[in-house]
This record gives sequence, structure tokens and C-alpha cells, in this order.
Amino acid sequence: MPRYALKIEYDGTPFSGWQRQADRPSVQGAIEAALARLEPGLPAIAAAGRTDAGVHALGQVAHCELRKDWDPFRLAQALNYHLRPAPVAVVDCARVGDDFHARFSALERRYLFRLVARRAPMTHERGLVWQVPHPLERAPMQEAAAHLIGQHDFTTFRAALCQAKSPVKTLDTLEIEERACPGGQEFRFHLRARSFLHNQVRSIVGTLERVGAGAWPPERVRDALLARDRAACGPVCPPSGLFLAAVAYDPDPFGNPTRPALDI
Amino acid sequence: MPRYALKIEYDGTPFSGWQRQADRPSVQGAIEAALARLEPGLPAIAAAGRTDAGVHALGQVAHCELRKDWDPFRLAQALNYHLRPAPVAVVDCARVGDDFHARFSALERRYLFRLVARRAPMTHERGLVWQVPHPLERAPMQEAAAHLIGQHDFTTFRAALCQAKSPVKTLDTLEIEERACPGGQEFRFHLRARSFLHNQVRSIVGTLERVGAGAWPPERVRDALLARDRAACGPVCPPSGLFLAAVAYDPDPFGNPTRPALDI
Repeated sequence: MPRYALKIEYDGTPFSGWQRQADRPSVQGAIEAALARLEPGLPAIAAAGRTDAGVHALGQVAHCELRKDWDPFRLAQALNYHLRPAPVAVVDCARVGDDFHARFSALERRYLFRLVARRAPMTHERGLVWQVPHPLERAPMQEAAAHLIGQHDFTTFRAALCQAKSPVKTLDTLEIEERACPGGQEFRFHLRARSFLHNQVRSIVGTLERVGAGAWPPERVRDALLARDRAACGPVCPPSGLFLAAVAYDPDPFGNPTRPALDI
Repeated sequence: MPRYALKIEYDGTPFSGWQRQADRPSVQGAIEAALARLEPGLPAIAAAGRTDAGVHALGQVAHCELRKDWDPFRLAQALNYHLRPAPVAVVDCARVGDDFHARFSALERRYLFRLVARRAPMTHERGLVWQVPHPLERAPMQEAAAHLIGQHDFTTFRAALCQAKSPVKTLDTLEIEERACPGGQEFRFHLRARSFLHNQVRSIVGTLERVGAGAWPPERVRDALLARDRAACGPVCPPSGLFLAAVAYDPDPFGNPTRPALDI
């Protein structure tokens, strides 16, 4: 059957997460329902990242198989038509070989986490950021983040339910950008790794927030990592600020450079 | 009565505009209702820009008078409490002298217009951008925009209902920024002037979009301006991408530099 890679953007707020569930709305379920309008009885689709409830995506990648030979542009248009009014959009689509697997072929995943520090409630970006009411300092957060770069046992920053075989992962980058925001500050955390553990990004950002607030010295993050103990982690932050920003493949099925320098 | 300047952010989608109306929700009405919870029977408030239905603000400025001597921080907090759940937030508040008037003391208004060119429907930014399904070229739009910079008779780019005494205005800047956007392009139009005519920004952006799409040569925008005829204007674009970004005063009531270099 012809195989297609889909690049997908979604607002995770109304969904119980990526993964299809019997009785709750999911992103996978929404896309499979749209595919069923084109050709009933297709196989399940697979995605690069199984995002949790409330987590968003700018560039999730999934692959699907259809019986008919679809023009990729028309396939994206047809799926977007049937996805309405759900906040899910296929932003790119490409024909791929049978050896392409959205999850297993992925070389790198990039996450963005948006944290806003201000007193006034959000207006335009409700549900798209994690908001705290107190000011934060970027420099200590970046200093603490440096302890997490590289290959480590991330047991401390891993959900108890995580199903990964090993807690050892390599975090390639963790950059914290500060932006102007009316009445406060916005911090954008940019993380890259081949793969992440369950709740790893939210565990890391929730812990770094404690450093930014002055409640934790930066070295406590190093100690927490070395403890390899879930109890040493800071509070896990809510999902609303988290975006699966991009997934890298070689070659890139969408014809972009191998590791696109996305401005995200 | 003690006078206060309020810096206000709002999502204009649910409102019939800034201005209070008898039977429809307005931003002014929402803020005056919150003020009435603090002290009943206060005078009406005045704003720097009377934004239309569906137009947003990042830094609208209004002034209000109260009888009690409020701490500005507590006043902002109390207003935000009573504004919930409306998507309106007071992001800054300052005590000002009796000679400060949000509208008449303003030296410069800055507008941002967000235009997204892509086929896939929007997910996170519905109602916050104007979307067109075809690609656009930035360079011809910027070339056409250059004809509009400076002091001109903007009759062509002014709503028939505009109540300004003169159609002559000075447009200080009109910069067009292109940003990456999943599956397409985003263009951010940054405009600055002491004041604007009714529908001036939407008339200009709607006309420049025709140039970006290749339907109008850039020189047609110069000819349209010189015609001083509303019929020569391109289509007026929808309000959803328009934001009142900032208002400048000297001195700035919020303690910022005279003309803050906001990253908007």
C-alpha cells in the first residue's frame, strides 16, 4: 500500500493526547476518522511522539497507508476538509517508501516549552503557555540546565509510568530564550534529543522554574540528576506550554534539509 | 479625583469593539463594569485607540478616575479579578496627573497586523491572524508600502464613515517582516503614526496583499494613493489579524523610555 508522511499541527487542549482511546477524543482518533472518510478500513497510523493530554504540536509527524495512489497535496487538502472543525491541521504531506516509519526513523525530536511570568491573566494565549505569577531569572535557569546536557540517567526526570527500557538519554540542547511580554516575561525552552522519556520535558521545566524563582540553587538540579530518584525532581509543570516542535529524518520526507534550522 | 493610566491587553474576538454600546459586549464596557465593582458611579474612561469589532490589543492605553487613592498594583489586580473570565487584562497601571489624557496625550500609535499565507487551516491562532490560501511575495509588498510612508492625503485608505477632520496623516513606518510558519508563511506588518484614520491599517494591508499575490503591480498602490478616491482602494481585510501594539507618551506613564523599542 502507498505510504505517506504527514506533518501535523494541533492545539492539544481538547484532546486526551495523541493516542487513540475508546471513549475520549484524541488526535490520532481525529486523523484516523478523517482517513476513514477517504478509504474505510485503513490500518492504524503511527506518530513520532505520543504527546500527552493538553500537549500541542507544531510539527508532529505521522505515517499512514492508503490503497489508492493519492497526490500528496490533494491528500492533505482532503484530510484538512474532514478534520474541521477540530484544531488539527495537516501542514505538509509526502509520499515515502515502505521503510519510512514516523517513530522509528526519527533522528531527533525538538520540543518547545513556553513559560510566562506575569500577574495579569493571559488573553490571546490561554492554554498555550504555563503561567506563573512571580518574576523569574533566566541566568540561573540556564546555569542549572547546563548540568542536564549530554548523556545521563534521567530517572529523576521520568514519569513513574514511563515505559522506556532505559532511563539513559542524551539531551543535545536545552536553550532558554527570554522574550518581551506585556506586563511580564516569557521564557521559551528549546530542547532537542533523539528521544525523550515520558514527562521528561515537563519534569525538567518544572524543576528549572524553581531555580528561576530563586527557590532552588542551580547546583540542586545537578544533585537531583545524580540522585537518580524520582523524589528528587521538582514539581512537574502542566502540559499547556508544551509543543512538539519538529522531528528530524534523514532524508527529510518533506524535502527540507536533513536537520532544518526551524525558527521555533 | 486621582487619575490612573491602564495598559490593557485583549482578545477582540468576542467584542463589538472598544467603544461601549447599549446592547453588545465591548472592551470599554467590560472595564467600566470592573471599575464599578470597586467604586460605583465613576466617570466614563477614555482610550488611545477606539478599536473596531474583532481587533485585538497588546498595549491599549486608557485612563480612569477613582475617588479613593489606590495603589496602582492593587488596582490592576482588583480589575483583573473582576474582569475574569473576559479575555481582557490590565498588564500595567500607573498614577498620572490630571493633564494626562490617554487619547490626546498620545504621541504615537503602533499597530501590528498578522497575515498568514497557507492552505492548512489555523489551529493555535484562529481569530488572531488573517489567513489567505495562496503564497505571497514580501519584496513587492515592501516596495509598494514605501509609497505610503510620510505625510499624505489618505482618502483612498479611509473608511467612508471616518470622522477625522482631515484625511492627511503622516505614516512614520510600515515594515513587513516574514516569519517561518508550519506549512506556509507569516507576514507581520508593523505600522507607526501619531494617529490613524478609521480602517486605515486594514485598507492598507488588504491592498498590499493584492500586491504580494501578484494581482497588483507595486506602482498601482502609489496611483491609488494619488487618486484620493475610496474606490481606488484594494479590498479591506478582516479585523482578526490586527493588534493595537503600543501607544507612546512623553513622559511614559509606565516609566518606560519615551519611545520604547518594543519587540512586537
